[in-house]
Amino acid sequence: MHDGRGIDDGAAQAGGEASADAHLREQRLGGETLYAGGFVELHRDLVRLPDGQQATREYIVHPGAVAVVPLLDDGRIVLVRQYRYPVAKVLVEFPAGKRDAHESTLQCAMRELREETGYTALEWAWGGAIHNAAAYSSESIWIWFARGLRAGAAEPEQGEFVETVTLSAAELEAFELRGDLPDVKTQIGLHWLQSWRAGRRALTWLAAEDAAGL
Amino acid sequence: MHDGRGIDDGAAQAGGEASADAHLREQRLGGETLYAGGFVELHRDLVRLPDGQQATREYIVHPGAVAVVPLLDDGRIVLVRQYRYPVAKVLVEFPAGKRDAHESTLQCAMRELREETGYTALEWAWGGAIHNAAAYSSESIWIWFARGLRAGAAEPEQGEFVETVTLSAAELEAFELRGDLPDVKTQIGLHWLQSWRAGRRALTWLAAEDAAGL
Repeated sequence: MHDGRGIDDGAAQAGGEASADAHLREQRLGGETLYAGGFVELHRDLVRLPDGQQATREYIVHPGAVAVVPLLDDGRIVLVRQYRYPVAKVLVEFPAGKRDAHESTLQCAMRELREETGYTALEWAWGGAIHNAAAYSSESIWIWFARGLRAGAAEPEQGEFVETVTLSAAELEAFELRGDLPDVKTQIGLHWLQSWRAGRRALTWLAAEDAAGL
Repeated sequence: MHDGRGIDDGAAQAGGEASADAHLREQRLGGETLYAGGFVELHRDLVRLPDGQQATREYIVHPGAVAVVPLLDDGRIVLVRQYRYPVAKVLVEFPAGKRDAHESTLQCAMRELREETGYTALEWAWGGAIHNAAAYSSESIWIWFARGLRAGAAEPEQGEFVETVTLSAAELEAFELRGDLPDVKTQIGLHWLQSWRAGRRALTWLAAEDAAGL
């Protein structure tokens, strides 16, 4: 049974093979779905701890999400402002959304950018993956960069209210320094953008028509 | 009734007062607790959307967590390696943990640093707050910096298996660039550390004995 966790890519993380981390790893003994709603799926598993004792682990099973760092030809960046109910705040964020079944991370990135902002992009570059709530969620956020943007009409989903804003990296860094950029994927995407522009991070750009099958 | 969300500080975020964001904000009409387990509390609320329609919002109510960026006198940084069951990986992270009731964020930071690594710190500086899963969790992560570290014996909680590692900022940046630092609070704390060391971010250091009441 697939239990929703990232088993496949778990072994080689952080410089340690699974066998070398036997003193840290937990083994799944069984589990159940506590709740499967319209948005959130909650699981509780029984695990064996490294010392042989047993414990329970409660966590959200999440399909993963993408975030897009969309770069305008003049250097500004396209973001969205969106009300986030759980924290009761309007947040400035990179366009983002959950991956649909049978969709690659890039297909998801292309769709979310178009739906939320109307933009399409001529070129795409893979940024990397992050875990935003590893204590209680299986979520990965896959970050893609987009450039060669062409404006179009946004197609928000039913019940989704977002507005597009364009800002420079300097304006976003000022937001961050005064505490007004609390969204983690947005701070990290901004840092990656700055390290790419400074020549410390490499990005490999693919033409959209070549990349669409990825 | 307190519904677990960060209402108090919601109005002035991202440059917009609540009234200016009426076209984005959602209003709580009611709700229920779907699950209250040992670790995770799941709520479902009914909300009124900006266009007057209704929708449901499912989200984790979280007490918030701290993360500590602990700086050794020689410039290296103290981190922990820990198995994160939901993502099935051992992650390199800053010491962190959930806030207990009646605990300030700094008291929580002091406790988690001591429990997970054994270190106490002579000086503390407030970093800032981030939201790591604002689509489905009320969690804030409050980041504190610590220096003047004194080693001691770790006191891990029952069932908690963590190991302490010390790394330089350059080593951590290399981890990040090759994709081996996926934990969001750790990447963001590292970036804030680097921007402080580069003179772009200010930190105000408080002596531990003066700060303990905060």
